Amino acid sequence: MGPSATVDAFHRGRFHLVQPASKGHRSGIDAMLLAGAVPTGFRGRAADFGAGAGAAGLAVATRCAEAHVTLVERSAEMSGCARASLDLPENQHLAPRIELLKADVALPGQERVRAGLSDRSFDFIIMNPPFNAVRDRATPDPLKREAHVMTEGLFEKWLRTAAAVARPGAEVAVIARPVSLPELLAALGSRFGGAEVLPIHPRQRAEAIRIIIRARQGSRAGLRLLDPLILHGSGRDFTERAEAVINGQVPLFR
Amino acid sequence: MGPSATVDAFHRGRFHLVQPASKGHRSGIDAMLLAGAVPTGFRGRAADFGAGAGAAGLAVATRCAEAHVTLVERSAEMSGCARASLDLPENQHLAPRIELLKADVALPGQERVRAGLSDRSFDFIIMNPPFNAVRDRATPDPLKREAHVMTEGLFEKWLRTAAAVARPGAEVAVIARPVSLPELLAALGSRFGGAEVLPIHPRQRAEAIRIIIRARQGSRAGLRLLDPLILHGSGRDFTERAEAVINGQVPLFR
Repeated sequence: MGPSATVDAFHRGRFHLVQPASKGHRSGIDAMLLAGAVPTGFRGRAADFGAGAGAAGLAVATRCAEAHVTLVERSAEMSGCARASLDLPENQHLAPRIELLKADVALPGQERVRAGLSDRSFDFIIMNPPFNAVRDRATPDPLKREAHVMTEGLFEKWLRTAAAVARPGAEVAVIARPVSLPELLAALGSRFGGAEVLPIHPRQRAEAIRIIIRARQGSRAGLRLLDPLILHGSGRDFTERAEAVINGQVPLFR
Repeated sequence: MGPSATVDAFHRGRFHLVQPASKGHRSGIDAMLLAGAVPTGFRGRAADFGAGAGAAGLAVATRCAEAHVTLVERSAEMSGCARASLDLPENQHLAPRIELLKADVALPGQERVRAGLSDRSFDFIIMNPPFNAVRDRATPDPLKREAHVMTEGLFEKWLRTAAAVARPGAEVAVIARPVSLPELLAALGSRFGGAEVLPIHPRQRAEAIRIIIRARQGSRAGLRLLDPLILHGSGRDFTERAEAVINGQVPLFR
């Protein structure tokens, strides 16, 4: 890692992350909220699809002491950051429970298996698909573009992969913008049931800026719309609950 | 109307409703919330699909002084109540702007036109489809069952009809349970865009019990998830905002 990378502390110093200093997708609130969808008592194998520098996966490993996490990232530069993160002395308490897989989540069938994503191998899959709309493609930074541009049918492909690598009864959690809700529900389809939709609002009286959906393979339960998480109070400070989730003190789902 | 019917005041006495006293679907909060989806300044022709005794349609006519409302109801008993409601002396200030159509919203094509639902004839369609799941079919009261049982593909049929009778740029508003969100979004599909989803929660920290979705024919805007309406405070009293919406003092969408 050169001068173009930074090392940032997360969860009040319980883990650190190597990230590109000025280009690429810098992790933050989204990754911490997504990680919050995994229950604190979770034990088993978790996959972090589109892991970037590994923020969400490392957050899961930090809060869930018996989780084994596989970071899946196709970008060479971002998976390089994830590798550097796992090599940091500060993360050696976590590194034995984390592995890194440089692979494209969208690969189909046998290509996916050859890339290292075996069928029926995970108990929880979290995903942060690149979710800005096509109109944002004008972004000048190509690395940032790779992380942010929504590709046609991406939710469908990522959830197809999630369904393939899920063990029976495994759960999936996705963070997305509200505009993606129709596409996301269609992609969950009959693969995952019992969907819980948790809206994220920047503040009271403002519309949602993100949704997190959690669902379970094989469940026949219907969709539920949970009470939202409000990020900020009247000022720029986080609400008490948002701060606790972002710092890994409590899970996102009550 | 016999002793088996009641006359109830809505909107603090601004309109009244004849309803079956002990059987059938008695209107209340759902109808008032749905009516709230129509902007106060609305002028033009509105249709109330599945009008029952006419609660939502009469609420729209009461708050929107330049609205003309068509109540569409297939049940003989409930449309009889709607007729009796329109004949009440208390409602004569509204009756000239309201018509009643005994018809099944789910009828296809020419059958629908013959039943009185002409193409491109409405500026706003509100609908309260029978939305309890099949497991509720055990309800012993057959009239109540007709109003509450979800028929396979009902949202698809009702929104197909809504799209047919909508004038270009017309809006539709639907009240449903959260469990119906996937089916409802699929049925809106490419017919109506710019969907605004407004969750209704019984109280803070409780999951949503209803959603109201408003969308516009021909819009290419993406879905938005609005800040929720909370019905109750700590006790049984309505919150200030819920009370104002239910009494027709303010519209539901800010």
